[in-house]
Amino acid sequence: MSIITLTTDYGLKDHFVGALKGKLLSEYSEATIIDISHNIDPFNVAEAAYIIGAAYSGFPKGTVHLIGVDIELSRDNQHIAMQWNDQYFICADNGILSMLIQKIVPQKLVTITIHDRLPAEATDLDVFVKVACHLAKGGLLNVIGKEITAIKEVTELQALASDTQIKGYVIYIDHFGNAVTNISKKTFLETGKNRPYEIKFKNQTIKTILPRYSDIVISDKYTWKDYEGEKLAIFNEAGFLEIAIFRSNPETVGSASSLLGLQYRDLVTIDFKN
Amino acid sequence: MSIITLTTDYGLKDHFVGALKGKLLSEYSEATIIDISHNIDPFNVAEAAYIIGAAYSGFPKGTVHLIGVDIELSRDNQHIAMQWNDQYFICADNGILSMLIQKIVPQKLVTITIHDRLPAEATDLDVFVKVACHLAKGGLLNVIGKEITAIKEVTELQALASDTQIKGYVIYIDHFGNAVTNISKKTFLETGKNRPYEIKFKNQTIKTILPRYSDIVISDKYTWKDYEGEKLAIFNEAGFLEIAIFRSNPETVGSASSLLGLQYRDLVTIDFKN
Amino acid sequence: MSIITLTTDYGLKDHFVGALKGKLLSEYSEATIIDISHNIDPFNVAEAAYIIGAAYSGFPKGTVHLIGVDIELSRDNQHIAMQWNDQYFICADNGILSMLIQKIVPQKLVTITIHDRLPAEATDLDVFVKVACHLAKGGLLNVIGKEITAIKEVTELQALASDTQIKGYVIYIDHFGNAVTNISKKTFLETGKNRPYEIKFKNQTIKTILPRYSDIVISDKYTWKDYEGEKLAIFNEAGFLEIAIFRSNPETVGSASSLLGLQYRDLVTIDFKN
Repeated sequence: MSIITLTTDYGLKDHFVGALKGKLLSEYSEATIIDISHNIDPFNVAEAAYIIGAAYSGFPKGTVHLIGVDIELSRDNQHIAMQWNDQYFICADNGILSMLIQKIVPQKLVTITIHDRLPAEATDLDVFVKVACHLAKGGLLNVIGKEITAIKEVTELQALASDTQIKGYVIYIDHFGNAVTNISKKTFLETGKNRPYEIKFKNQTIKTILPRYSDIVISDKYTWKDYEGEKLAIFNEAGFLEIAIFRSNPETVGSASSLLGLQYRDLVTIDFKN
Repeated sequence: MSIITLTTDYGLKDHFVGALKGKLLSEYSEATIIDISHNIDPFNVAEAAYIIGAAYSGFPKGTVHLIGVDIELSRDNQHIAMQWNDQYFICADNGILSMLIQKIVPQKLVTITIHDRLPAEATDLDVFVKVACHLAKGGLLNVIGKEITAIKEVTELQALASDTQIKGYVIYIDHFGNAVTNISKKTFLETGKNRPYEIKFKNQTIKTILPRYSDIVISDKYTWKDYEGEKLAIFNEAGFLEIAIFRSNPETVGSASSLLGLQYRDLVTIDFKN
Repeated sequence: MSIITLTTDYGLKDHFVGALKGKLLSEYSEATIIDISHNIDPFNVAEAAYIIGAAYSGFPKGTVHLIGVDIELSRDNQHIAMQWNDQYFICADNGILSMLIQKIVPQKLVTITIHDRLPAEATDLDVFVKVACHLAKGGLLNVIGKEITAIKEVTELQALASDTQIKGYVIYIDHFGNAVTNISKKTFLETGKNRPYEIKFKNQTIKTILPRYSDIVISDKYTWKDYEGEKLAIFNEAGFLEIAIFRSNPETVGSASSLLGLQYRDLVTIDFKN
């Protein structure tokens, strides 16, 4: 099995995604192609970084992730490929891999060097297609690139931890209108050391991070329906603190984004008590 | 061939659907994964019931349908799996399968019992992944669950037939803005017994259910263009009465929903004459 | 490998696309099904023509393209299949293939004649499923249709070239809000013969067609960021003149459509100087 995943800002109406799949299958007919998202906000590198960082872990070893966001080649925007956690990532060197390399050191990093081996009319995406199929077939990174030691980090607001506080930011509003922050469970556990805490944002306070959404239902006297619209905090399955509304629906009940006013880049803090 | 279909309210922008497919392929690399819809209105069980009820029939025997809508496990929301019409359905016991079991009796119903066999950090969706792959590989329901005899029915408005009238409701507005009701062709034929009829809704009347949309064009003197925007009734390919606008386009010509004011849960009746 | 691609106006919320894939896999379990687009504007034949014309070229020989836009069979809307450039296209005879046949003469054209061999309840889409699987398995056109010599052309505004001017029109606004015209690179090269030129639209002028979007960045003193929002012209990868905004985002920076006011069917001219 050779899986190639796609994460792009191409949208689903145009021909771009279909044409890309045609090229991949022309180059490597046995590839299993899986869409992660084609609705990344155009040129939004931070959003692409979050999505690929949240999606990769379920995929098997050897999976190749092609990330088509802001890929036009230039002096400042080189094409790179990375082997990391036994998976492969192909993208432009624009910070998209930051979230991953903060967690685990890459096994190998290369700057892609095959551009002059392709026909003159080849596009940037054609280069990625070539590299993705090469890697999916089991090819080596050295064959398509030159080893490098560092890549660009995304210049986004980072979560900061002191002894008594973690200061983080909303990095993504998801489909349910929930606000995902850049405060990881790991940072929370290491900083908090089991002390009591308060989560604060926008004049609101939450005192408990729930194991599951439905743990907000604490009494047998009430049904889930009675709790709809209540705010809660949880670590989402990508490992980040999420401020949510129980059974939110942006178009009916409302969402963390609409009801609590939480937007991209808003501050969320956790204060620990001694 | 082992097909696993997906019907969820996860949307297509987030990483959820891609991550789910990664997990399925990690567990069973030969699965053929087919998306039914990921745009179910969040937590809308009635909508999910209609979509899966309308989609299943084209799939081959042995297909496994994973329905990821409102799946958080609780005392009141058990995980179930059903063998029905030689296909399999995995979902929470929240009424989603009502539409199917009203048509045909299930071959087998189980409540899923493998939760304690999975790692502590496994999510509800991980349970569904495990069950879906087990069934897609040809595994038995008994291995992953305990047989039960009944499941929850959705508490939606039902179509009611008397001797002279069928009273139904709009259950879905489709992509073309057409209004699908819960009046089935079967109920219409059994109740109507070839008598003349009138369909009524919102001060409007339709006297003929057309075999095909284009049967609205009754004269050679006019082109299809001349009939654009006319209202009509038809049994859609899922077998339900649909109030439509000929060649509707919600953004230009208008649709049954926008032009006739038909909304979710609106009343539609058929009166039969003796 | 047998690829069947899908281009429809069915949208992604309803069950239609999933049900179609189920039917294809029931008929031919080894088909590789690739979505081109399901977000064609309802019944918009011109848009479907552009999308399939822009998408086909990356696909391997033998690929079957099923186009489900405005397919209801009638005297004036026959079902056809075409072998062209070693690929197959199945659609209604409504002008969708115009863009392709203007480039290359079809290898074979047939009007589909299998309708009476299918069950009475078969839909128009069922006919397409049958034909698509037949062709994907390597079957011949003659078996499912009767040879014809001509098909309908789309009655859209055509680009016109005189000695000193090309007059074209916006035919598509893409996901990034860029305006794609029907002026091909071929027409531009043949008419222009290396003469200087000016592109004009809506009181705006552009004097250079760029090889790449990022060629707008002409000085080392400025970053890409400084050029965001600037207008440019380029031949897109489908070979058509495109008026774009550098790093456009319809929701933030703005787009050619929103900033320059370019809409579907707007005039764009290229004047050549002697």
